[in-house]
Amino acid sequence: MAGTSGGSVANAEELNGDDMTNRTYELDRAHVFHSWSPQGSLTPMVIESAEGSYVTDDQGQRFLDFSSQLVFTNIGHQHPRVVKAIQDQAAKLCTIAPQHANAARSEAAHLIAGLAPDGLEHVFFTNGGADAVEHAVRMARLHTGRRKVLSRYRSYHGGTQTAVNLTGDPRRWPNDYGADGVVHFFGPFLYRSEFHATTQAEECERALAHLERTIQMEGPSTIAAIILETIPGTAGIMPPPPGYLEGVRELCDRYGIVWIADEVMAGFGRTGTWFALDLYDAKPDLITFAKGVTSGYVPLGGVIVSDAIYATFADRVYPGGLTYSGHPLACAAAVATIETMKDEQIVEQAATLGTEVFGPGLAELQERHACVGEVRGVGAFWALELVADRETREPLAPYGGSSPAMNEVVAACKKNGLLPFVNYNRIHVVPALNIGIDEARSGLAVLDEALSVGDAHVAR
Amino acid sequence: MAGTSGGSVANAEELNGDDMTNRTYELDRAHVFHSWSPQGSLTPMVIESAEGSYVTDDQGQRFLDFSSQLVFTNIGHQHPRVVKAIQDQAAKLCTIAPQHANAARSEAAHLIAGLAPDGLEHVFFTNGGADAVEHAVRMARLHTGRRKVLSRYRSYHGGTQTAVNLTGDPRRWPNDYGADGVVHFFGPFLYRSEFHATTQAEECERALAHLERTIQMEGPSTIAAIILETIPGTAGIMPPPPGYLEGVRELCDRYGIVWIADEVMAGFGRTGTWFALDLYDAKPDLITFAKGVTSGYVPLGGVIVSDAIYATFADRVYPGGLTYSGHPLACAAAVATIETMKDEQIVEQAATLGTEVFGPGLAELQERHACVGEVRGVGAFWALELVADRETREPLAPYGGSSPAMNEVVAACKKNGLLPFVNYNRIHVVPALNIGIDEARSGLAVLDEALSVGDAHVAR
Repeated sequence: MAGTSGGSVANAEELNGDDMTNRTYELDRAHVFHSWSPQGSLTPMVIESAEGSYVTDDQGQRFLDFSSQLVFTNIGHQHPRVVKAIQDQAAKLCTIAPQHANAARSEAAHLIAGLAPDGLEHVFFTNGGADAVEHAVRMARLHTGRRKVLSRYRSYHGGTQTAVNLTGDPRRWPNDYGADGVVHFFGPFLYRSEFHATTQAEECERALAHLERTIQMEGPSTIAAIILETIPGTAGIMPPPPGYLEGVRELCDRYGIVWIADEVMAGFGRTGTWFALDLYDAKPDLITFAKGVTSGYVPLGGVIVSDAIYATFADRVYPGGLTYSGHPLACAAAVATIETMKDEQIVEQAATLGTEVFGPGLAELQERHACVGEVRGVGAFWALELVADRETREPLAPYGGSSPAMNEVVAACKKNGLLPFVNYNRIHVVPALNIGIDEARSGLAVLDEALSVGDAHVAR
Repeated sequence: MAGTSGGSVANAEELNGDDMTNRTYELDRAHVFHSWSPQGSLTPMVIESAEGSYVTDDQGQRFLDFSSQLVFTNIGHQHPRVVKAIQDQAAKLCTIAPQHANAARSEAAHLIAGLAPDGLEHVFFTNGGADAVEHAVRMARLHTGRRKVLSRYRSYHGGTQTAVNLTGDPRRWPNDYGADGVVHFFGPFLYRSEFHATTQAEECERALAHLERTIQMEGPSTIAAIILETIPGTAGIMPPPPGYLEGVRELCDRYGIVWIADEVMAGFGRTGTWFALDLYDAKPDLITFAKGVTSGYVPLGGVIVSDAIYATFADRVYPGGLTYSGHPLACAAAVATIETMKDEQIVEQAATLGTEVFGPGLAELQERHACVGEVRGVGAFWALELVADRETREPLAPYGGSSPAMNEVVAACKKNGLLPFVNYNRIHVVPALNIGIDEARSGLAVLDEALSVGDAHVAR
């Protein structure tokens, strides 16, 4: 029973606007346990409202959302068509159990399968990305009869135990009790090449050789799956070089391994294509998705299943499930989101943002700012790698940590009304896909000014 | 890309009612991968609409929902007040990232903490029960610095890998790669006593001695947590005997072990109290919840955290999280659900159902039907244990399986318009908590008739 429930905080109805805001903040601090944080020292921003690419805090300050929150509001905040679809479905039928069939669920599965490559026709719905990964791994293990899963360093696959064990970033460390069926390898990343490569072609070739050697050393007959974010997201937005995923497909075929393409962050238009996969010529066995599928308006995730893996579970029970699998309210939001993206050509807008605004604009920032070591990305999915030294490529904050320099850059963005997405020494430019060209440019202008703060920390 | 996307199925807009129904069924079979099932042989019921305690299928047949779907629509289907709250929140603000604060999230955390015992004041929100269990286990492991978790046979804790490993029912088996930090023990269950007990007091005492012996054999210093559904749900609705949970608390205190009370199915009024815990005199360290908190209208789950465990993460990062933690739409549904339950005294209604209708009504069925070996439960949370032989207590379907006899009983229920909840040899009576007294009695009448079908399979 809360200490505050005995009357020390008045009823919401009795409060005016300012008190209401205080109440939200106070109740948050009194009762909300937040993700990935020390709980005692948090001072969360209170978000009162949001629309399109803007969010407004409790002080009435408006921010241009260059983060899409956690890279999920792909169609921006409060798109009226999706809001209405949620309201209509709520009026009609909020929920049914997973064993039944329902129009919203059927239509969502149909639309999502229609976006995936031929031969991936069935959708297992989950609540988000982490449980999508958990179930994809289970399908791969039971399909192959093998246990081990390979994933790359510099990756993120979710917060549940199996998903966080697969993760190749520091969030895994405190949860790591040993291998537990997971082996990490190095993927292609030319800017910080593990393979001493100097060109993308060389990086690609060497990264594939390294993967094959890892498979051989671990024992192909023990490996159920390789899971890869098609383009690693939070870990640094590193589009794989041409040929890499095609090579992964070949290795998987050669050794009887399932390829799981994690499209949780990269999917649903982020890259200027429906899936990041569409930029390459290779077809995975399982695709995990979440975030953009509903723009996060209602929690939803899932796994798109190849016909071969579906066949494994045609006569045999798939031993997994969840209460809210194919939740009608979430599925109605997915249908409306996908149809809106099609009708308003939002995927095409993301592509244009990449070629017209962020590609050239970020290249210019790199030229002008000594602290920008590299920019990379595609569509509305870009990373700036900030460094203290362009020659040594020493990051402006250590791997897994923060630094005064990075904090200053971020503070300068926020001071000027920009919400950036930050991870260690990187700033990611990941706005809504339908952000206006002028809004996108104004965000880059704020970033330009903030990067000057970073430049002061550059050694040479 | 779907074979059906090329025009072989017409647009939804062009179809009349019957075609629309066919479309829903056909698209389900073409594209939906279902939970816990062999995919090839499914013939799911198409649910068109639902209201209160009734659902209507695509043939226009109405069913009295004695299952609450999967025991989650605690306030029935489509309660107008919760529907409106979802619509209002959708209009206002569907989603924000977990690191921010928001009124809906704060209010939901405040209300939920207010229902929990004193000293459990913070809420970590998840999307459902499985990830609530995953995070509760993580908190316990990091709080204690130990790895192992004890759970009972005859239990269910969720479908993700850690949650399903903890599960003590046959759904674990195909996912079981060895102990992996989990040890199962036997809990109290007098009807099928592991301890050769003949009274509840004896069962309680012996079950506690067995648990302590198990702790000693496993090594107390290796055990992070004991997780228990307060009243095991799908595994059989077995209210623990008086004193058992109090004894678990004592053992946890003696050996420095965290007690996780899983209230995912039993919580939010199901037992005629807010939490099943309220029926006992013992306070856990962590409480997991989901389902009833929103009646499943929007997916939501979470962990209520004791002050001692909160303190562990006051200055130290809690290394877990998820994109939709504290989702505003879900939190608004929780606030409306809890307030509706309070205003309409729905928890009290559940208690009355137990004492006035299901307690006496099911006892009468047991008297009249040879196939009913035992009935047990409380509130709106009851199990009928069906047997082929009352003396040997041989179940009417084997553990983990089905039987023609059980299939016939279930078919008789459905034929007469009743949706039961079935698990192996058991029928559970788990309707909405606010089902009408007359509706509840009419459901029992259908069950009465169906049980006669079961009687024909009884040996003596």
